[in-house]
Amino acid sequence: MSGDALVASLAGDDEIAAQFSATAEIAAMLRFEAVLAEAQGALGIIPDDAARAIAEAASRVVADKVAIRRGMARDGVPVPALVMELRAACGEAQGGFVHHGATSQDVVDSGSMLRLKMVLSLINDRVARVLGRLADMAADQAATPLMAQTRMQAALPFTAAEKLATWRVPLESHRGRLARLAAELPVQLGGPIGNGASFGPDYPALRADLARRLGLREAQPWHADRTPVLDVAHGLALLTGSLAKIGQDVALMAQTRVQAIELTGGGESSAMAHKRNPVAAEALVALGRLNAGLLGTLAQSMIHENERSGAAWTLEWLVLPQMAEAAGGACRLAEALLADARFVPEPDAGR
Amino acid sequence: MSGDALVASLAGDDEIAAQFSATAEIAAMLRFEAVLAEAQGALGIIPDDAARAIAEAASRVVADKVAIRRGMARDGVPVPALVMELRAACGEAQGGFVHHGATSQDVVDSGSMLRLKMVLSLINDRVARVLGRLADMAADQAATPLMAQTRMQAALPFTAAEKLATWRVPLESHRGRLARLAAELPVQLGGPIGNGASFGPDYPALRADLARRLGLREAQPWHADRTPVLDVAHGLALLTGSLAKIGQDVALMAQTRVQAIELTGGGESSAMAHKRNPVAAEALVALGRLNAGLLGTLAQSMIHENERSGAAWTLEWLVLPQMAEAAGGACRLAEALLADARFVPEPDAGR
Amino acid sequence: MSGDALVASLAGDDEIAAQFSATAEIAAMLRFEAVLAEAQGALGIIPDDAARAIAEAASRVVADKVAIRRGMARDGVPVPALVMELRAACGEAQGGFVHHGATSQDVVDSGSMLRLKMVLSLINDRVARVLGRLADMAADQAATPLMAQTRMQAALPFTAAEKLATWRVPLESHRGRLARLAAELPVQLGGPIGNGASFGPDYPALRADLARRLGLREAQPWHADRTPVLDVAHGLALLTGSLAKIGQDVALMAQTRVQAIELTGGGESSAMAHKRNPVAAEALVALGRLNAGLLGTLAQSMIHENERSGAAWTLEWLVLPQMAEAAGGACRLAEALLADARFVPEPDAGR
Amino acid sequence: MSGDALVASLAGDDEIAAQFSATAEIAAMLRFEAVLAEAQGALGIIPDDAARAIAEAASRVVADKVAIRRGMARDGVPVPALVMELRAACGEAQGGFVHHGATSQDVVDSGSMLRLKMVLSLINDRVARVLGRLADMAADQAATPLMAQTRMQAALPFTAAEKLATWRVPLESHRGRLARLAAELPVQLGGPIGNGASFGPDYPALRADLARRLGLREAQPWHADRTPVLDVAHGLALLTGSLAKIGQDVALMAQTRVQAIELTGGGESSAMAHKRNPVAAEALVALGRLNAGLLGTLAQSMIHENERSGAAWTLEWLVLPQMAEAAGGACRLAEALLADARFVPEPDAGR
Repeated sequence: MSGDALVASLAGDDEIAAQFSATAEIAAMLRFEAVLAEAQGALGIIPDDAARAIAEAASRVVADKVAIRRGMARDGVPVPALVMELRAACGEAQGGFVHHGATSQDVVDSGSMLRLKMVLSLINDRVARVLGRLADMAADQAATPLMAQTRMQAALPFTAAEKLATWRVPLESHRGRLARLAAELPVQLGGPIGNGASFGPDYPALRADLARRLGLREAQPWHADRTPVLDVAHGLALLTGSLAKIGQDVALMAQTRVQAIELTGGGESSAMAHKRNPVAAEALVALGRLNAGLLGTLAQSMIHENERSGAAWTLEWLVLPQMAEAAGGACRLAEALLADARFVPEPDAGR
Repeated sequence: MSGDALVASLAGDDEIAAQFSATAEIAAMLRFEAVLAEAQGALGIIPDDAARAIAEAASRVVADKVAIRRGMARDGVPVPALVMELRAACGEAQGGFVHHGATSQDVVDSGSMLRLKMVLSLINDRVARVLGRLADMAADQAATPLMAQTRMQAALPFTAAEKLATWRVPLESHRGRLARLAAELPVQLGGPIGNGASFGPDYPALRADLARRLGLREAQPWHADRTPVLDVAHGLALLTGSLAKIGQDVALMAQTRVQAIELTGGGESSAMAHKRNPVAAEALVALGRLNAGLLGTLAQSMIHENERSGAAWTLEWLVLPQMAEAAGGACRLAEALLADARFVPEPDAGR
Repeated sequence: MSGDALVASLAGDDEIAAQFSATAEIAAMLRFEAVLAEAQGALGIIPDDAARAIAEAASRVVADKVAIRRGMARDGVPVPALVMELRAACGEAQGGFVHHGATSQDVVDSGSMLRLKMVLSLINDRVARVLGRLADMAADQAATPLMAQTRMQAALPFTAAEKLATWRVPLESHRGRLARLAAELPVQLGGPIGNGASFGPDYPALRADLARRLGLREAQPWHADRTPVLDVAHGLALLTGSLAKIGQDVALMAQTRVQAIELTGGGESSAMAHKRNPVAAEALVALGRLNAGLLGTLAQSMIHENERSGAAWTLEWLVLPQMAEAAGGACRLAEALLADARFVPEPDAGR
Repeated sequence: MSGDALVASLAGDDEIAAQFSATAEIAAMLRFEAVLAEAQGALGIIPDDAARAIAEAASRVVADKVAIRRGMARDGVPVPALVMELRAACGEAQGGFVHHGATSQDVVDSGSMLRLKMVLSLINDRVARVLGRLADMAADQAATPLMAQTRMQAALPFTAAEKLATWRVPLESHRGRLARLAAELPVQLGGPIGNGASFGPDYPALRADLARRLGLREAQPWHADRTPVLDVAHGLALLTGSLAKIGQDVALMAQTRVQAIELTGGGESSAMAHKRNPVAAEALVALGRLNAGLLGTLAQSMIHENERSGAAWTLEWLVLPQMAEAAGGACRLAEALLADARFVPEPDAGR
């Protein structure tokens, strides 16, 4: 969502959004070019001093965002414009070794993975905080008698501990999944048509070393197989879905006639002073429905024509960042919602 | 999409995005409050001098965006915070008449409709420009022999005029539809629970007069029936889909071995100097797939629980603005693409 | 959904599904071929006796479904196999005039429109019955005091009449829309590449006459512009969404602690004898979410490459029938649900 | 899709569809009830002879499908009707021990998992056949020079071996994923509200033993956490997406002017005798787009209200079976397509 829209103040996430800003995109791409040069220097694919010059220039260059945006609009990728800047910063002698053998997709995809690694780490920290809050609630209120509801009808009595477990278990599972995904984000290095030929005979060694230096998983090129992107999206949609389920449960439990949960803070109505709306709970549901739908939209990008599809690839850039921001916003909202929530013993649930 | 992300330079649309900025949202809501007061003043529902004071304050107040964003995060709607500011600006005597009888949904939905009216007008101007370019191409190249392609196989020869007609006809139809939709965007006025009771016996007259003053269609409250929103979304998805179809056709016709269309400008590759990528054509396909998927996501908001669903409503705010921006961006891209496109006679198509 | 699956007994619709059976598909295609021949005979495009022979054969031929299924699997459309059968039935002299100038898409799309006309009529009859039930409820219970719920919280008292109006108004609107759509379903006649050239100089007259004879709207070929299909899908999704909203409301109002509505019949639990689950209400929500998502999936087919896309077209056949069946099933469920539903005065809603 | 519709002959899969028939559903549920009784007998939760009688009755009973369908329509689940039949078959003395402690969701979800296990096995056998065909093509045609295409433009020469690898690698990965998923499909056993209380103190042992006997993974109840269903759906969508990518590539390579691949068999046009349409390739794309969209629709069911959501659960039954059938149909189509496909050396790709 646009950071400027009012809804961003409710459901957005500036910290996650920052990882998808032009600044972060450019920084990750420059890091890729620097580390590629270092790895190529170490293997003798490019001269050592070129490698050093490139790495040094990449750390110092202040990219001209206007020029890069113009390049993006013209070329559909920011890489030609960025490489031109980096070459100019390196000087004529060494500039020719910048981006050696690489293609835009290597830079953009590896850069995305570097940023997703940070994003997943930020999100997992927040899931940990939500889990912490659930643990606190369990410590305080485990024995509170509640009425389990199945198919929108009162079923049988149970306890807050049991209710909390149904919220905790999936979050723990998703947290493990996201941590595994973060540890397995693959490097992208394949050259113009994804077969590595442009890097010469040391391509396998280069790819492995590049992955190691970037903290990414060594992997065959996945230029035209977008499974790694879909796996991250799936993990984000599951997380947002489970948080939305908590939101839906809280909204149902906080209903005026149910009052199995009490919320403090927020939710003022402009027309009815007596009301307290479960705003965070509802926003969680909205974000869950958004990420569910976006997952299906993103999955269209699996149909990636031939060796590189600009259409499918662009679709990813339009969808994945907002899925990450929605997941991040949902964690933030869930933490706030649960901080303000307290179970209320249900009279007919006493045993 | 976030205006700061690089992809916004390719596929975004600043002019449309501006209509969904906090500034535009606040301005539209203040206009609603001003015009509501004027209409209530005219009908004697509130004192005339209160109406004048409110309208005057609404035209002069510079909303404190930080406070309104804080209110949005707390209340799930910006209206309580905005009304508080407007009341303060009116002074104690008149402030009590601000937002008289209204609920947040009246303000937010009517404000959205005011902005959508502008959005649809901007988009339709652009569709007109795309149609103009298609007319120019028809004037220049009507007789150019081309090979019709069905099911990805050469079928029979036809002419550029016939090809262009398959692009033009749906755009003309969508343009008519969007114009009708713009003329029928409904006012929202229902009060807290959507039955108009809070406005007193003159409610029907008030609603009609408010609609007239705002240039919106007089309509029964649609608080919990989101058909008007879905109709706009459907129109935007159809338009983006038809523009994506043009993009898909151009990308197919511009293939190296096909060359039924020649593109100039843009599309540089970072690795292969000989290539010219059909960047705008591909971005059109991406935007078409995005808006198709978003339409399905937005349609979930039809399931609007009881008299107002915060969850379904928030989902709209997350989805509709990006659909409008994608449609606007697609128009811009289609115009640029076609400006750079020229049919090439297909040798086997001449008879 | 597969008619054999158990869920079809809950949420399916045999009557609507029958319109998408092989039998109905073949019958509609034979009718198209017969009427096309008659219209061509009347205009002298084919000999009169050929026209009569084709119409007669089409009315008598019992298509070999096994052969037509085999043709479908081989050719991706059933038309070549069906035309071969019809030609054989006409005999050698006249058989050559079968399908004269036409292409598979003319037959399949026009046949679909004929069946959709019946489908929309069936659905609208059911919407009328739902509206009838809502009118009965209003007659019986208009004054019953209820508590309006906004954002999942009790808001202000209102009456059953007002509640019922929020259910009725959108259904009336959708019914009008579906009736208009049914009256405007377009004929498809364009020949191999959609420009009508294969039908000779009398093509405009032929198309108009064919449309008249079939009871369809005369229209330019829409081979590659799928707006008419999307408009029907949109109408079906809106209807299913509004019925799902009724289901969601009923499920919320029937909650054990709320009891603003009382349901009789069905919903037995295998484990808890005291429960009555609001089964039809929940199934309505499921169908609404299904059709919302399917609308977004179908909208991908707007991106129809060149003069005919087998991929986009096949996607329609996979999606649209289930949307129609889901809409039909939802009408049936809503009628049954409301027949078993009675509002219960809410004590705190008395004035 | 309905097995009776003509499109099922093109894109459907009878073998997979059979696993979602009423017959298969009932058989799996009876197996669950039998094995539950055996496990409960072994642990002394129910008498041994009751366990034997139930297992014996479950193996012999011929369920009255009409009655079970009627029960499904009434109760939203087939379990009450099925349990009543099974109890009657056991006789009065033992019948009371049928379904002891269990709830409908235990039966339905565990039954689904048993059938999904078979489905995943069938699908993986087919993926193996597709991989076998790819291996054959690699053996025959590895060195065939082709032109890699990036962003719809000729890029650089490569070989059929490299092209085939881009198709093979993701399929191998998905095959491994589906095998892991099949091995990890979880048993469902939680009782009325998912906390196991109804099974008494031996619940953990019972759950573990039941899982072992059914060949499912022992797992905490996932009544309200639908991650296992979503993981299967994600795996199916990835597979269908990668197969659709092959279809898209083949359709592009088989274009008249490209001819990098030659297809034999099928694809007759009713209007143009010279054409051979890449029917299977196009159907693969349609199925890929279908399953992508359905994944997003299914993901809405993560928002599962409270201890059991009839709405979210019903949505699964409407979506997951068709995803499995589409994946199965896609395997079948891919195998047939590749059996008829042969690369053609591209003249400008020679080195």
